Amino acid sequence: MNAESDLRQYATQTAYRARRASRQLACATGEQKNRWLRRSAELLRTRGQEILDANARDLEKAPEFGLTSAAIDRLRLTDNRLASIAAALEQIAMLPDPVGETIDSHVRPNGLVVSRIRVPLGVIFFIYESRPNVTVDAAALCVKSGNAVILRGGKEAFHSNRALHTVLTDALGDVGLPADAVQFVETTDRAAVGHFLKLNGLIDVTIPRGGRSLIERVTAEATMPVIKHFDGICHVYVDRAADPQMAERIVINSKCQRPGVCNAAECLLVHQEIAERFLPQIAAALQDQGVELRCCKRALPLVPGGKPATEADFRTEFLDLILSVKVVDDLEDAIHHINEFGSHHTDAIVTSDLRAARQFTTAVDSSAVHVNASTRFNDGGEFGLGAEIGISTDKFHARGPCGLRELTSYKFVVYGDGHVRT
Amino acid sequence: MNAESDLRQYATQTAYRARRASRQLACATGEQKNRWLRRSAELLRTRGQEILDANARDLEKAPEFGLTSAAIDRLRLTDNRLASIAAALEQIAMLPDPVGETIDSHVRPNGLVVSRIRVPLGVIFFIYESRPNVTVDAAALCVKSGNAVILRGGKEAFHSNRALHTVLTDALGDVGLPADAVQFVETTDRAAVGHFLKLNGLIDVTIPRGGRSLIERVTAEATMPVIKHFDGICHVYVDRAADPQMAERIVINSKCQRPGVCNAAECLLVHQEIAERFLPQIAAALQDQGVELRCCKRALPLVPGGKPATEADFRTEFLDLILSVKVVDDLEDAIHHINEFGSHHTDAIVTSDLRAARQFTTAVDSSAVHVNASTRFNDGGEFGLGAEIGISTDKFHARGPCGLRELTSYKFVVYGDGHVRT
Repeated sequence: MNAESDLRQYATQTAYRARRASRQLACATGEQKNRWLRRSAELLRTRGQEILDANARDLEKAPEFGLTSAAIDRLRLTDNRLASIAAALEQIAMLPDPVGETIDSHVRPNGLVVSRIRVPLGVIFFIYESRPNVTVDAAALCVKSGNAVILRGGKEAFHSNRALHTVLTDALGDVGLPADAVQFVETTDRAAVGHFLKLNGLIDVTIPRGGRSLIERVTAEATMPVIKHFDGICHVYVDRAADPQMAERIVINSKCQRPGVCNAAECLLVHQEIAERFLPQIAAALQDQGVELRCCKRALPLVPGGKPATEADFRTEFLDLILSVKVVDDLEDAIHHINEFGSHHTDAIVTSDLRAARQFTTAVDSSAVHVNASTRFNDGGEFGLGAEIGISTDKFHARGPCGLRELTSYKFVVYGDGHVRT
Repeated sequence: MNAESDLRQYATQTAYRARRASRQLACATGEQKNRWLRRSAELLRTRGQEILDANARDLEKAPEFGLTSAAIDRLRLTDNRLASIAAALEQIAMLPDPVGETIDSHVRPNGLVVSRIRVPLGVIFFIYESRPNVTVDAAALCVKSGNAVILRGGKEAFHSNRALHTVLTDALGDVGLPADAVQFVETTDRAAVGHFLKLNGLIDVTIPRGGRSLIERVTAEATMPVIKHFDGICHVYVDRAADPQMAERIVINSKCQRPGVCNAAECLLVHQEIAERFLPQIAAALQDQGVELRCCKRALPLVPGGKPATEADFRTEFLDLILSVKVVDDLEDAIHHINEFGSHHTDAIVTSDLRAARQFTTAVDSSAVHVNASTRFNDGGEFGLGAEIGISTDKFHARGPCGLRELTSYKFVVYGDGHVRT
């Protein structure tokens, strides 16, 4: 399958089958979908060797793809990792079914009952570069929310993903759900993705999960809506009315607990009135953790060992033990900086002043705005969504962590008794 | 302003101003926004002559644009029409403010309070071809939901729209809201739209309201999300268990009450078991109203004066006194036909069978699914949304009538007490 026309036909047929399966899934009961989740978990346990063998083939090829040893470790499956993947399926089975939920309902003066009922989106095209467990997580979230999914994983994990997909579709057959509810793109040809992205009549939404270049390519080419996850340039603002011990704890946690992820802090803002006292203290604590500090002109004299920051530093997602530092005039200045230089992902204020907290949460235009809590909490699990397929940096449709509910739409269901309009 | 570079600069500066105004609007209180709505209504009443004079200039030019007399009538403003426009503003002032609403909130086991709070989308680019009253309605809905709006009206109503816009911005100044909250594209050059559609960093959503070609152009060119309103190919399915009198009333109302609008029925489906009895009765009633009937092979012998339907007829939005008619095997066949031939807009079943109603509302994939009620009810006003900026045929973000709530997003607001992640 290499010629463009073959790829186009393959994409179209795959999407047609997904569309047909999605109609059946939309009417499936929660119990049926949960049976599939539990049956998949069972098969992952009993057929582990089959998956580990496939994984071994990927690991063998890893050096060809130039994977680092860290990347190879992420690619590797073990009995323990398979057990966690299976356990995650059982946890998703325990979440409430979002489909069919009455979002709101009211009786109109003429007696019509108008309700908004939660329904699946339809067909989801999921493109990912990540570890093989994402194959299972994504399929589970999509099917539980009543959607058919087309999975397109990275070439490095091709055999592992295919083996996991086989188990998932076998389980679909076992519980009487359509096998086409979860399809796997059987070619690693990059051109295939382009054909899927043209099918806006058949695919309802595309979700890319990976690096910036993947997301930019998908956004540029897609003819259907895309749920995007761009940079996390997250801030902690330490207000004049902050408890300095609490501020230190939150800054250290936001920056250092896991510096390579999107909800780690990249910039510290400090109110000018407390800068002289607070900055030397927090700078020493951060430097103890190995953090390099890039400081604005006002901050620099207060940070021994600090480096001068460029404007570009304030627009950079370091994903590393580097933090930009800026002294701000006041709360308004902090809000303005965050809205102009940040990426609308996660931003925190540390303050004991209620008015400042209210103003910060109202005016900062980010997917999550935290008061006296680390930026690291912006996460589907921490927010109680149960599981997430990604974190949206869009405002349209879904924002922040995307769980089951964010993979749904709604319809108006209207009951009358012969009502006509006059 | 004609050179491409001038248009590009104009679009960018307009969008920048809108972005800045949107930040202020996001923090405006409901009372401020309502004062603007009431002040605008007042100015529309006291400065009516200014608007009627501008309207007269458009009416004078109407023959040049080749407008039909019906279109000229829609373009015409009168004292009465201005009074209704003003009254609509006062009604929107009475609706609850969607901004700041707590959508849901819960306390996590660690004590974090995680809430989803409704926030504006930001900047809306609204492109419309319709009557001048839409200028005022759209501005009112956007600003009440906390969004800045850039209005791009049709050339036929340019002077009327500009005069209305002047009144709206004067009122913004009177109540202390930023004048850039409502901007009006001061050129009728078609190329200007293309430049706005490239500004996905500044404009959050584009809403086109007009014919199919406008919507297709906008969808193809836009780099930001679009709320679309495509065809309404709406069905009434008369089930085996339908009350024939009720069915007749609903079919007649769905087709004839206002045949030129999107929620009028275009296709009648009848269960085979009742076709022989019901079809001659409803056919006569429809023909009495001047409706032309285009029938499938099984329906044709039961409809004296009916014409044979082509497959294309079942995919056509007639917007006229024409109805396609098809006899279906059963409920499943009706659902299948609607999902494959319809446009996912509005579809109704007439039945007294609870199981049939449940199955129809679950399986029909449309923005509104009606049981024993005319398709004509799919409308923001009839559904109790207060007012609507359009009806979305998308599933993503908003579906069906779009009122104030559908012009919003949300953010997560998280309150902790020094919480860090471990």
